[in-house]
Amino acid sequence: MKLDKLVGDRFKERPAECSIDSHALMVRGGYMKFMASGIYSQYMPLKRILRKIENIIREEMDAIDGQEVLFPVVMPGSLWEESGRYNAIASELLRFKDRNGTPMVLGMTHEEAAVHLVRDYATTYTKYPFMIYQIQTKFRDEARPRAGMIRVREFTMKDAYSFHTSQEDLEAYYDRCHKAYERIFARAGIPETISVKSDSGMMGGSVSHEFMLLTPVGEDSIVLCRECGYSANMEAAECLTENVPAVSSEPCEKVHTPDAHTIEDLCALLKTTPEKTCKAVVYQRNMDDSYIVIFLRGDLDVNETKVTNFLGCDIHPAVITEESGIVAGFIGPKGLPETVTVLYDNSLVNLTDFPCGANETDYHYVHFNMKRDFGEVEYHDFAKAYAGGICPCCGKHTLEVSRGIEVGNIFQLGTKYTESMKMQYVDSDGELHYPIMGCYGIGVGRLAASVCEAHHDDYGPIWPMSIAPWQVNLCCVRSDDEQCKAFADKLYDELQKRGVEVIYDDRNVRPGVMFSDSDLLGIPVRAVVSPRNMKDGMVEITTRDKSVQKKAAAENAADEIQALVNELLAQCNG
Amino acid sequence: MKLDKLVGDRFKERPAECSIDSHALMVRGGYMKFMASGIYSQYMPLKRILRKIENIIREEMDAIDGQEVLFPVVMPGSLWEESGRYNAIASELLRFKDRNGTPMVLGMTHEEAAVHLVRDYATTYTKYPFMIYQIQTKFRDEARPRAGMIRVREFTMKDAYSFHTSQEDLEAYYDRCHKAYERIFARAGIPETISVKSDSGMMGGSVSHEFMLLTPVGEDSIVLCRECGYSANMEAAECLTENVPAVSSEPCEKVHTPDAHTIEDLCALLKTTPEKTCKAVVYQRNMDDSYIVIFLRGDLDVNETKVTNFLGCDIHPAVITEESGIVAGFIGPKGLPETVTVLYDNSLVNLTDFPCGANETDYHYVHFNMKRDFGEVEYHDFAKAYAGGICPCCGKHTLEVSRGIEVGNIFQLGTKYTESMKMQYVDSDGELHYPIMGCYGIGVGRLAASVCEAHHDDYGPIWPMSIAPWQVNLCCVRSDDEQCKAFADKLYDELQKRGVEVIYDDRNVRPGVMFSDSDLLGIPVRAVVSPRNMKDGMVEITTRDKSVQKKAAAENAADEIQALVNELLAQCNG
Repeated sequence: MKLDKLVGDRFKERPAECSIDSHALMVRGGYMKFMASGIYSQYMPLKRILRKIENIIREEMDAIDGQEVLFPVVMPGSLWEESGRYNAIASELLRFKDRNGTPMVLGMTHEEAAVHLVRDYATTYTKYPFMIYQIQTKFRDEARPRAGMIRVREFTMKDAYSFHTSQEDLEAYYDRCHKAYERIFARAGIPETISVKSDSGMMGGSVSHEFMLLTPVGEDSIVLCRECGYSANMEAAECLTENVPAVSSEPCEKVHTPDAHTIEDLCALLKTTPEKTCKAVVYQRNMDDSYIVIFLRGDLDVNETKVTNFLGCDIHPAVITEESGIVAGFIGPKGLPETVTVLYDNSLVNLTDFPCGANETDYHYVHFNMKRDFGEVEYHDFAKAYAGGICPCCGKHTLEVSRGIEVGNIFQLGTKYTESMKMQYVDSDGELHYPIMGCYGIGVGRLAASVCEAHHDDYGPIWPMSIAPWQVNLCCVRSDDEQCKAFADKLYDELQKRGVEVIYDDRNVRPGVMFSDSDLLGIPVRAVVSPRNMKDGMVEITTRDKSVQKKAAAENAADEIQALVNELLAQCNG
Repeated sequence: MKLDKLVGDRFKERPAECSIDSHALMVRGGYMKFMASGIYSQYMPLKRILRKIENIIREEMDAIDGQEVLFPVVMPGSLWEESGRYNAIASELLRFKDRNGTPMVLGMTHEEAAVHLVRDYATTYTKYPFMIYQIQTKFRDEARPRAGMIRVREFTMKDAYSFHTSQEDLEAYYDRCHKAYERIFARAGIPETISVKSDSGMMGGSVSHEFMLLTPVGEDSIVLCRECGYSANMEAAECLTENVPAVSSEPCEKVHTPDAHTIEDLCALLKTTPEKTCKAVVYQRNMDDSYIVIFLRGDLDVNETKVTNFLGCDIHPAVITEESGIVAGFIGPKGLPETVTVLYDNSLVNLTDFPCGANETDYHYVHFNMKRDFGEVEYHDFAKAYAGGICPCCGKHTLEVSRGIEVGNIFQLGTKYTESMKMQYVDSDGELHYPIMGCYGIGVGRLAASVCEAHHDDYGPIWPMSIAPWQVNLCCVRSDDEQCKAFADKLYDELQKRGVEVIYDDRNVRPGVMFSDSDLLGIPVRAVVSPRNMKDGMVEITTRDKSVQKKAAAENAADEIQALVNELLAQCNG
């Protein structure tokens, strides 16, 4: 491929709308073009990257006995009604009617389609286990698409579905898939990706993991312990606290605390610190706007996912009305209206002498003791884990909170879909069972952007050889120099003959233009043919990451370039 | 791959809903599963076939300097408003609103997206020519999906768009693409595909060709001349007729023709034949229901596409009201209401003495002479070509009408999209021009089904080696025989090691079941390991099309199978 006909503009200025580097570089380098919010067209370089990633994924899925299939993008709403998700999912699920008025949806995930494809086939235990996967366009009507290919509405995804007759078999396969994912991310150039325990959200099921690339620009929070290797998505991370019971036991007393609406106000007034107080956070159920009050230690935040999972329904931050009987800013355990659901966080265990609201404007209690002054309550984990907190695995105060991009996820789904969609098989004793499912996703475009985010400099992406749009960027500096041009042309032909993927820049432009385009394309190997080098019978060979910078004798150039390409490719494939 | 875990049912009974063989076989063979009207999931065998076809297409598109890109499936309606097609296309274009109420469409073709991708880039003549293509899911909300993968609503398509600065350049590229298409169809196993001139329909532009696989089950009519090679889509085929002017010239006379509403009635009454009469066919314009009457020779039919193109608007068969002043069954040139648009077909030229309606119930004229009794009129080509008609190329009465499946098409689009979407470039003199476009489509799934339609027997498809889901079907008849099983296992490993794609059937089932499954999978080469053959130290090697049926010494089996695979592959690639 000659660079002068490569469709797409490359330019220097960072586009204002790009909040993260990978997005800016992929716009500046002519990889993608904005069409509508969260919807992009892909130019050739990005398309080539995605195809290479898809092939890596395909190889690894085939290696764990996956069967590649294809599900439709457009599906009948009735199929999603079977699983209950037609109504359960909010407006991310794009619904519309076809010309006959039949309700349809755009596939954002394909559990229903997977069950539909196999439920008439896998009716006896002998057909199990099996895994089917596809690499296909998906559409998710995100409220806030952002960060280029990281969070889009339309995207290419590999989604896989496995079917089993026992939990043990699912778990064994889940582990195989976990390892396949590690290989995929390593081969694609981000072996530093970690897997973290996660909340299963709308997918159902219990055990699940997210594969995270740690980066400050990630939109997910991850809780890590460097001591023991514990890691979890913030939504799933357990929060442990320890409190020392107070020695003294002064009686509880109501005090006037005018204008002390926040924990900070209260601490200033009472000369104490947040971790010695109790605060209240109020939510409402989405379905009926009924109130939920969560009490937790003053220094902690609520993990809404834990509350949602505990209640089994969706919630939103409360709008507190006068009729509710809740006195905002002065909420405490004692004297709350009976209509309110009250939850107590584990962080209050052993906190025996603390200030809290008195459910009366401008009044708090001090020296409150839950058991003594209110009664026995049940404590559960509703708080967000925090940096410096206690690791649930090794028990040390070693937790860190990092940001990450989720590049893949795996779920143990259980029988949520097979039960709701009435898929059954007969076991060897003639008895009917619901098969147990796992599902496994990777966003292909997001993975490409993540690799770019992890490996770039100010001048452009630094693509790993395994997914680079081309392997070699051949630059003929001074293509008006006859000898130069003739040699570069020959080298181009020779490399192509050997099956090396070359993008050849023989434009008659300044070297500065040539090299800044080369940096933006991020090709791992650059070979420069110039009059000066030609004089010495040499070709300059460098890698995009500068780890190799050498000159090769012109007659060996093709050999050396090919060897370098193979070496870098082998590095990616471990 | 072992057959016993291949997901998908294979069965004997022809499904009632399948009107054509390829559909029936692809359902019976576990290739596809119905999800909704015109929407199917694909099992592994079909997915593998499509991937191989896609790779053939990709290689041929790359070979004519195509750049693979990717356009979105979901596009903003505003983009389609720019070209005018948002309103111009009927309900095949699926329109809906996203969560923000923004009008969106599902891509059924991507001219708008192609112009959007390159119009900011290709602003000077030096960037031209170039071609971009994608292989992507499309959705067309067909009124009548039918025939399995032949006419679906959701499908995978390769669509390509080329941009040029001169008509000559477009034509030169169009020819290159024409040749690439011939190679694609030949490599995919249907070299018998022919190209026919076609009407451009909603795509705009002038010259276009359809690539047709001739088959009685095709839904398109093609007009062919075996003498000179002329071919055209029925919609585009010129209709030539010749009439000998009457010798006598009796005066025109109004005659009573009670109940003679049709040409057949009239001919019976007047003892003449349809080709000596003039009939009228009535349409209405879609936009305002105004009437159009077309007069043509009584033995011919109207080609609605020609009328639509002539008028520049869409039409439908008329509902004739009393108010219209049109007397159904007795329509003639003389005395028609002035509000009616009247068109005269070329077939009436030189017809100088004919009966025709008198625009009065139960009355016709006889001995009518257009020029003498009505006046000079303009004649145009509005009639359908017909079998036995005159070839517009060689002038002989040699036309045949065949049925065909359209497996691809190429269009010279002109500047329809670049003008409407304001894409311009500066030429070497600094002047602005609209680039000239071509577009080039192939339906991947339809191509697969067409190959199956062309190459199958009662027992299953006969896939060409180039696109077969697997190259070799290894059957171990009597896998309970230890020696048999051990040898077959070894052969399976050996073939896989050599990179041969093998599907291995080692199920403990009757040979009949094994072979009928094998036929349904249509794998080109079958290798049978059986106790009987083992006794002689032989393996049976046959091709699906029975052209090869031989035994190979067991120790040479892998070599011979591999050689046969390579030979059949080479045949496909010409």
